[in-house]
Amino acid sequence: MTDSTAPTAPTTDIHPLDRALELTPTEPGVWRGRTTADYWNMVGPFGGVTAATLLRAVQLHPDVLGEPLALTVNFAGPIEDGEFEVRAEPVRTNNSNRHWTLELRQGDEVLTTGTMLTGVRRDTWTDVEATRPEADGPENFERYPGLPGINWVSAYDLRYVSGGLPTEADGSADDSRSTLWVRDQPARPLDHAALTAMADCFYPRAFRRRGGFVPAGTVTLTVHFLADASEVAAHGTEHLLGTAFSRRFGRGYFDQTGELWSQDGRLLATSHQLVYFKA
Amino acid sequence: MTDSTAPTAPTTDIHPLDRALELTPTEPGVWRGRTTADYWNMVGPFGGVTAATLLRAVQLHPDVLGEPLALTVNFAGPIEDGEFEVRAEPVRTNNSNRHWTLELRQGDEVLTTGTMLTGVRRDTWTDVEATRPEADGPENFERYPGLPGINWVSAYDLRYVSGGLPTEADGSADDSRSTLWVRDQPARPLDHAALTAMADCFYPRAFRRRGGFVPAGTVTLTVHFLADASEVAAHGTEHLLGTAFSRRFGRGYFDQTGELWSQDGRLLATSHQLVYFKA
Repeated sequence: MTDSTAPTAPTTDIHPLDRALELTPTEPGVWRGRTTADYWNMVGPFGGVTAATLLRAVQLHPDVLGEPLALTVNFAGPIEDGEFEVRAEPVRTNNSNRHWTLELRQGDEVLTTGTMLTGVRRDTWTDVEATRPEADGPENFERYPGLPGINWVSAYDLRYVSGGLPTEADGSADDSRSTLWVRDQPARPLDHAALTAMADCFYPRAFRRRGGFVPAGTVTLTVHFLADASEVAAHGTEHLLGTAFSRRFGRGYFDQTGELWSQDGRLLATSHQLVYFKA
Repeated sequence: MTDSTAPTAPTTDIHPLDRALELTPTEPGVWRGRTTADYWNMVGPFGGVTAATLLRAVQLHPDVLGEPLALTVNFAGPIEDGEFEVRAEPVRTNNSNRHWTLELRQGDEVLTTGTMLTGVRRDTWTDVEATRPEADGPENFERYPGLPGINWVSAYDLRYVSGGLPTEADGSADDSRSTLWVRDQPARPLDHAALTAMADCFYPRAFRRRGGFVPAGTVTLTVHFLADASEVAAHGTEHLLGTAFSRRFGRGYFDQTGELWSQDGRLLATSHQLVYFKA
């Protein structure tokens, strides 16, 4: 699927996500990147990949300490097709963790802000208290065919178990929840960057409650990484089971919480968003 | 209740929360504040009041636009008893909202970072989809008596409906949820600052799952304001119903989600934390 406002990506062996996350260092703590056609959204890049790009900057920083634990990204303004500058600054270091501030600019304009926490994990008591939604395996569901002009949807193998993107014929639903299988397309071994991007793979819950498209966009996204790095790495290329829902809609905004589960019932990450909408 | 490491607060007519949030401007976008005995925690100020102090700085800024929508605060290092400096910088303004970066320092040390979104709300379709936990009114429950050395607990009227702070005799619980009535003590009309502080009123969920105290501390807190300013102001001095739970514990961290409800079933705010623990 192509979009007239975004360039056509060259064919190479590199995975489209890795191409989207390519950053070139320009000075200490600063990198240059560029938007790619593969993850174009309607009026800018897919927010999940923008969040993953900020996370990647921290991972590339020579002072990175430990693995990603938490990330908040604020989508402050529209990113235009082309180059951007990313900054990651370590602002506080403790024995086992480090706090970062993040920024994405085009020219003089700050378009994304954020904060991140990385740290060294240690062994503790462990329990997954939440319950994975019931769902037959991904092979039992059709791949979602994609959406004209919204390239990033085709960069995933999305298989809705319930709560698929509504059409006008569906009408409004009484609850906002969707559950779906999700994997990079083409398949790519899971890492924190891919997990971050997938944490934003859920369409705005207002679509489901209103029975079709309404203007909506995430203004802030928080991801908590609940699996450790070895679990993320061991996941490989299997689908994740994602589920998302909202608690309250009104006066121009709604919240949206997502969970990303492994097939064997490990909760890898959660996302919590505030989303702007008109309806 | 007093704590030997914190000064005794002078007796005045000002509410303890307002005293804790007092900020004196020192240069544009910078304020000086100080910790107070009323909200002292074991080794520093109550995180909820630190978060509320950063929110207050934005509210005092001459460029504030609209009302609080979302706040993320990262507890990067321990704040010592005494003065601190707070910075709030507007980094991006759109038609109806403004993005802020936040910082709290003592001397040269950055001890808290954060980001915030303020905005003008507009009328839209509205629905509270989540369900308020069942609970009889606050008059049916005893006020929690407080904890030696943890002053902030006594700055609230906390009435546990279920999942009270466990004692050794209680043992470990199978689920992490607590539900409680909460109000400032003495009573104070609700505003965004008070709501922010209350979003951190839930003890660490690991206490409940492990059946007693374990070392634990919030490293990052995100608050989403789902009620508009008129609803917050109209709430007055009634108790809020809070409920909190965790999804996964392990490798040194767990997540914790809280909801703050009005008595008549309006969800005013949610909180999402990542918490460090040893157990």
